[in-house]
Amino acid sequence: MIKAGIIGATGYTGIELLRLLVPRDDVEISVITSRELMGTAVHKHFPNLRGHLDLAFSAPDSELLEECDVVFYATPHGVAMNSVAALLDKGVRVIDLSADFRIKDIALWEQWYNTTHSCPERVADAVYGLPEVNREAIKSAQLVAVPGCYPTAIQLGFLPLLENKLVDSQHLIADAKSGVSGAGRKAVEDFLFCEATESIRAYAISGHRHHPEICQGLSRFSEEDVKLTFIPHLTPMIRGILATLYAPVKSGIVVTIEQLQSVFEDRYADEPFVDVLPQGEVPATRNVKGSNTCQISVTYSEHTNTVVVLSAEDNLVKGASGQAIHNMNIMFGLNELAGLQNIALLP
Amino acid sequence: MIKAGIIGATGYTGIELLRLLVPRDDVEISVITSRELMGTAVHKHFPNLRGHLDLAFSAPDSELLEECDVVFYATPHGVAMNSVAALLDKGVRVIDLSADFRIKDIALWEQWYNTTHSCPERVADAVYGLPEVNREAIKSAQLVAVPGCYPTAIQLGFLPLLENKLVDSQHLIADAKSGVSGAGRKAVEDFLFCEATESIRAYAISGHRHHPEICQGLSRFSEEDVKLTFIPHLTPMIRGILATLYAPVKSGIVVTIEQLQSVFEDRYADEPFVDVLPQGEVPATRNVKGSNTCQISVTYSEHTNTVVVLSAEDNLVKGASGQAIHNMNIMFGLNELAGLQNIALLP
Amino acid sequence: MIKAGIIGATGYTGIELLRLLVPRDDVEISVITSRELMGTAVHKHFPNLRGHLDLAFSAPDSELLEECDVVFYATPHGVAMNSVAALLDKGVRVIDLSADFRIKDIALWEQWYNTTHSCPERVADAVYGLPEVNREAIKSAQLVAVPGCYPTAIQLGFLPLLENKLVDSQHLIADAKSGVSGAGRKAVEDFLFCEATESIRAYAISGHRHHPEICQGLSRFSEEDVKLTFIPHLTPMIRGILATLYAPVKSGIVVTIEQLQSVFEDRYADEPFVDVLPQGEVPATRNVKGSNTCQISVTYSEHTNTVVVLSAEDNLVKGASGQAIHNMNIMFGLNELAGLQNIALLP
Amino acid sequence: MIKAGIIGATGYTGIELLRLLVPRDDVEISVITSRELMGTAVHKHFPNLRGHLDLAFSAPDSELLEECDVVFYATPHGVAMNSVAALLDKGVRVIDLSADFRIKDIALWEQWYNTTHSCPERVADAVYGLPEVNREAIKSAQLVAVPGCYPTAIQLGFLPLLENKLVDSQHLIADAKSGVSGAGRKAVEDFLFCEATESIRAYAISGHRHHPEICQGLSRFSEEDVKLTFIPHLTPMIRGILATLYAPVKSGIVVTIEQLQSVFEDRYADEPFVDVLPQGEVPATRNVKGSNTCQISVTYSEHTNTVVVLSAEDNLVKGASGQAIHNMNIMFGLNELAGLQNIALLP
Repeated sequence: MIKAGIIGATGYTGIELLRLLVPRDDVEISVITSRELMGTAVHKHFPNLRGHLDLAFSAPDSELLEECDVVFYATPHGVAMNSVAALLDKGVRVIDLSADFRIKDIALWEQWYNTTHSCPERVADAVYGLPEVNREAIKSAQLVAVPGCYPTAIQLGFLPLLENKLVDSQHLIADAKSGVSGAGRKAVEDFLFCEATESIRAYAISGHRHHPEICQGLSRFSEEDVKLTFIPHLTPMIRGILATLYAPVKSGIVVTIEQLQSVFEDRYADEPFVDVLPQGEVPATRNVKGSNTCQISVTYSEHTNTVVVLSAEDNLVKGASGQAIHNMNIMFGLNELAGLQNIALLP
Repeated sequence: MIKAGIIGATGYTGIELLRLLVPRDDVEISVITSRELMGTAVHKHFPNLRGHLDLAFSAPDSELLEECDVVFYATPHGVAMNSVAALLDKGVRVIDLSADFRIKDIALWEQWYNTTHSCPERVADAVYGLPEVNREAIKSAQLVAVPGCYPTAIQLGFLPLLENKLVDSQHLIADAKSGVSGAGRKAVEDFLFCEATESIRAYAISGHRHHPEICQGLSRFSEEDVKLTFIPHLTPMIRGILATLYAPVKSGIVVTIEQLQSVFEDRYADEPFVDVLPQGEVPATRNVKGSNTCQISVTYSEHTNTVVVLSAEDNLVKGASGQAIHNMNIMFGLNELAGLQNIALLP
Repeated sequence: MIKAGIIGATGYTGIELLRLLVPRDDVEISVITSRELMGTAVHKHFPNLRGHLDLAFSAPDSELLEECDVVFYATPHGVAMNSVAALLDKGVRVIDLSADFRIKDIALWEQWYNTTHSCPERVADAVYGLPEVNREAIKSAQLVAVPGCYPTAIQLGFLPLLENKLVDSQHLIADAKSGVSGAGRKAVEDFLFCEATESIRAYAISGHRHHPEICQGLSRFSEEDVKLTFIPHLTPMIRGILATLYAPVKSGIVVTIEQLQSVFEDRYADEPFVDVLPQGEVPATRNVKGSNTCQISVTYSEHTNTVVVLSAEDNLVKGASGQAIHNMNIMFGLNELAGLQNIALLP
Repeated sequence: MIKAGIIGATGYTGIELLRLLVPRDDVEISVITSRELMGTAVHKHFPNLRGHLDLAFSAPDSELLEECDVVFYATPHGVAMNSVAALLDKGVRVIDLSADFRIKDIALWEQWYNTTHSCPERVADAVYGLPEVNREAIKSAQLVAVPGCYPTAIQLGFLPLLENKLVDSQHLIADAKSGVSGAGRKAVEDFLFCEATESIRAYAISGHRHHPEICQGLSRFSEEDVKLTFIPHLTPMIRGILATLYAPVKSGIVVTIEQLQSVFEDRYADEPFVDVLPQGEVPATRNVKGSNTCQISVTYSEHTNTVVVLSAEDNLVKGASGQAIHNMNIMFGLNELAGLQNIALLP
């Protein structure tokens, strides 16, 4: 039985961790912390948990955390870096869903997050928790930085193209569409129902915090500094990210759609949570609502000699809490699929 | 291992049966039929099943059906009555999600469904599959008629009041709000996105086919012929029914809210899928999205001496496929919760 | 040219006043106040006004207000009562969209709004701005209290029945469904997109502030103290209220549907903004989105001897800003339809 | 008084023409045809028109059409080409909202629409009704082909860049997101509420019929054959298109954001229906819901030397019926803004 704690479980990644962990026989939720809600029954805040979980929120500094085998941080950036060292020192393994340990270049992190990093000495050893790339390192990781929602969908989509050096890494474009849950459960006017529904708009066009994280990953795959135009869009749906990726074929390379399809299928043949669709099918975010699958399709436009990849995930599952649990499964030597086999809720 | 077949699994109750049955270890889906889609892989039609189910639709008269332990009809009314007898004669147990065997008064059924019943001789023995009322009969049933979506939410809401003779059974009102999935997956103009979103309207105000089914049940609980005004409303959401029920307190009876709360809590104390909320909380359909729970709260208005009950369910789960599986669990002596413990998807 | 001012125009009723007033030739918007946004161009806050209105928000105590012919309060309750007297004393006519002057019984108002009324001496003379009832009084009113959104739809629906003493005024039920814009443009967690979409729930079941306002009006029509059960519901759409009204036929009265239809048609024959639908048609909130029409249909259930009325409006137009402008038109002797003839946006 | 007829006004562009034309004093709707609905009152089909329009659908071959000054075709492709010549011969001016006369290269049209063009002799003289480009020709046009919804948003976004030869016309990308009303009011399963809501997906990735129309226009502006990757997406909202346009800066050209902003502002300075947003603001489809405005913003990414343009319109207004009426205003020498000044419905 793995004893798990969750820090800051009052937002959407918190509730999603609980939805996925509570039914498991091999994991026990020992402690859930919240500064605001300490003492309140968790199911008062998340009424879907009534009858499933009988636990109240604890104080953020609960001693129970140190007795956990694994602690998840479901907090905004800037929290984990302040307390993770103490847990690691006690031998607790940590899975951080926030941005604190994702970026290796600390100066770059500090620039984008506009904060001094309070725990830079742990950044180098933190493992970037994208299992499709880092499975071996995750197995023995003490500290895993779970990728962001956009970075997951976008890296998985570009990965086979860059690893195979098929596309021009200096002119990549990611046009991404996210559901509103990506903004979290914060009372902000822009995300009110009447403000967000029945409309679509781009945001963060002068630069989104996931941009350096994505570039770090893509550059690693391609072994050169990539250049990426990344435009995220707020889409009137609760869950889901669809990333539409455009990559010009590299000069001197000739591709066919059959070859591209093989490259993708081969790359992900053994990956339980990446589903490469056959030619003629395209992903839709509804196909993966509530599931840990990333659906990917690849297309080639001869007219413009451009590869177009579509990559869809549930931002709260494969883009956050499901991927965190996938990491936990790997870290603890469990079946990777444990607790993650539920079928998407359709319709 | 229970061998299960599904007839007509191309609509929303069909996909929902599959979502709930496919992950189970104790049930094997042997055959899924569809006249239109025979030969097509099921996951082509329901892309959320890719990687979970490797089966093609069979012809409606597949011989595999007779080898099943249980067959679900996920068909419109008028289908099951034509073929159920043959299956029953072979010893197959049948769970019919359609309306064919719900109403005991055959003339009444024929009037509302505007069809001659082709299998009236099986109606009397069919068990109305509302476990909270008919658990014993379900255990040995050969043919179960799964209640309709509105009838489930409305009967569960009125049941404790009528059984305890607290309210005037001649002046009941059920104002029910349903998500659009209740209309099924039929290409009908009224249910297009642009017609159904951003609007609410009543429909079937001169009489909905669930009215006689509800009255049959309520009359049984109250041991008198109830009179019910029932107005269903089309609500711009995929899933969920919220029934707001109004019942004047019976003449000569005095009620308190504490008493009402006890009456509801006591009635459903042992029911795994009815959750009576504490005073001060009210149901929301999102709290039960994808789960088999019916959330109920009771309120009393002194000003008008009226009891108001709120009853919320997922129309495709507790209102259809989940309840069908609950019936199967009871029929086959399984843990009633088997396959039905998933937590609602929130948000 | 009527000079109009708007106080507190940063919410949804404010933007709606502007949408309807700005295009008019006979009205000039002189001043729009906002404590928070003073100095900001109005179109920065409401980007749909770019190119239509070149004005910045003024301070709440702007002297320009006193030079207006009419001032609209688009503020929460508790604001108008503090400053309306000064404007009235200067001869400015005031149209208050808030609740401050709607209820004649000051003690009752103070109880429901949990505030001491700071201007009780103006309550008696304030005219309740429901034109279908108070047209004459509105013509000469100095201070109009615009009815609330629910009270408008519900009173118009019950009015012909009560005036004609056809129904039992002691057992009225109003089950009302409102879009989320009714909650205003406040950053409150419950009204976030991810909290409010894909769900329906009742709220304020122990008592909604519109209850005494509705009862005051209904009692006036019926000439007896009515008793009303009123349950509002939050519906996942931006705009619209649908009120489903249940009224038992009065003891000793016999009604027919033909008679009921006539009663409604006759009552509203000369009302430009109440549309009684023919038998067989029912209102939908989408039919009146953005328009000042209230659509009403009446049905009679013989089975339960109950009249069911459906009443649909756009809560921001007929339920707020459109009705406010209708009042202005009447007060200033203009064509009642001026500026209010736009057709609902469908789809 | 202009006498106008509408052919095939049962879909969303038809209702939108009526919403915009009916309130006008200078236009009289003489005849509205529909094969399916002939004899039915128009407001039975479009309940938002109750009280605004008292007309029934006529047969498609109504003689009244020939007496019109202008006839709008609000039909699917393949209809106008069969009957437009007869009207033109009678001196009726025609505004065709369908695709029949948009593409000059008849072979190309036949290839994409998979039909033989039955009226190729009228194609050359048909004026492509994009007023921002073709105003002069529209004035005297007998037959106007109104641009498609995607082509309008995309051409207006690229236009200033291509006219000024600032970007590489061989590597253009248009990632467009459309509301569901773009699919029309056809009972097709894919566009059911439960299929289209809460999801986003790309479609027509192997080629959309608007592609050749867009390329024809862009090539004209740039005076060279452009190459464009165009991926449309189905977005869960009723109205609106947001086009996110990516254009690499031309080799040898240096741009600044100030310069780009000027280029856009200058190009559209005199255009009443194109609104170039200031730096720091971005379009949202809700800002133009129901209005004829196309909102555009331009951004420059130094990192990738790419210009990103965001272009938002209401697909049913600026992308169809509003633009058609703008054309009518120009053709008949009216104020271009007549009937098109309504403010977007927000929220």
